[in-house]
Amino acid sequence: MVLRPATRAELPAVLALLADEERVVDPASVTVTPAHERAFADIEADARNEILVLVDDRDLVVGCLQVTYIPGLGKGGAERALIEAVRIRADRRGGGLGRELMRRVIARAEARGCALVQLTSNKSRTDAHRFYDSLGFARSHDGFKLAL
Amino acid sequence: MVLRPATRAELPAVLALLADEERVVDPASVTVTPAHERAFADIEADARNEILVLVDDRDLVVGCLQVTYIPGLGKGGAERALIEAVRIRADRRGGGLGRELMRRVIARAEARGCALVQLTSNKSRTDAHRFYDSLGFARSHDGFKLAL
Repeated sequence: MVLRPATRAELPAVLALLADEERVVDPASVTVTPAHERAFADIEADARNEILVLVDDRDLVVGCLQVTYIPGLGKGGAERALIEAVRIRADRRGGGLGRELMRRVIARAEARGCALVQLTSNKSRTDAHRFYDSLGFARSHDGFKLAL
Repeated sequence: MVLRPATRAELPAVLALLADEERVVDPASVTVTPAHERAFADIEADARNEILVLVDDRDLVVGCLQVTYIPGLGKGGAERALIEAVRIRADRRGGGLGRELMRRVIARAEARGCALVQLTSNKSRTDAHRFYDSLGFARSHDGFKLAL
């Protein structure tokens, strides 16, 4: 099992995970649009953004997330790591892979010198909340979203 | 009143606002450390981060915030704007400046093509929550933080 930046060839597998709610989506069935290509290239070229994939011994993408490293004036100038779009493949849930994914991304942020890891989770996702609580996160904030 | 990126000369005024809880902090009393200088330069050089200041007609910095524009694979490849460190000068609160600041940054994100504006606010700050509710934000998420 390894956590590393997604390659361009893995973009369909990442999009399949993002589309995967209850059951596995076949990467071969996913349409990669020019907007996807552009966004992926933008993220790859940005030293403060990365899409990470958790890959098993058979080279299967079993999880993914996006991290943004945010510079700031507080905390001695250290970055904070913002995590979005955490996914584990539907047929691989319940076996501790989510915990593995989160532990590795936290270690990665720590190695980079980040002072904080932060994320938001929809208020309806009470299972996810218990999971983040168990990883040591403080549920200290409310998260506000405004669609434009 | 204008909202624009902070200049290096305004860094002490921004740090004074960040230190200002109940009463105005004099920018001349603020120590600008090498870590502050470095973080400010990093943010200035990053096309996806900016520290914005709200400046009155007499060129006084009366408010500030930081925006991070986050690229992503969802929403047709549109960025989302993450807002942090919103401050209004202690002696200028209660007169609608916070609303002015937020309206302008939302318009700025919209003009840039962002699909979403998001922020988190400590659960204890119920006044701030009513304020964001009134601006049309949905309080849909819980915000989790892990200090490293």
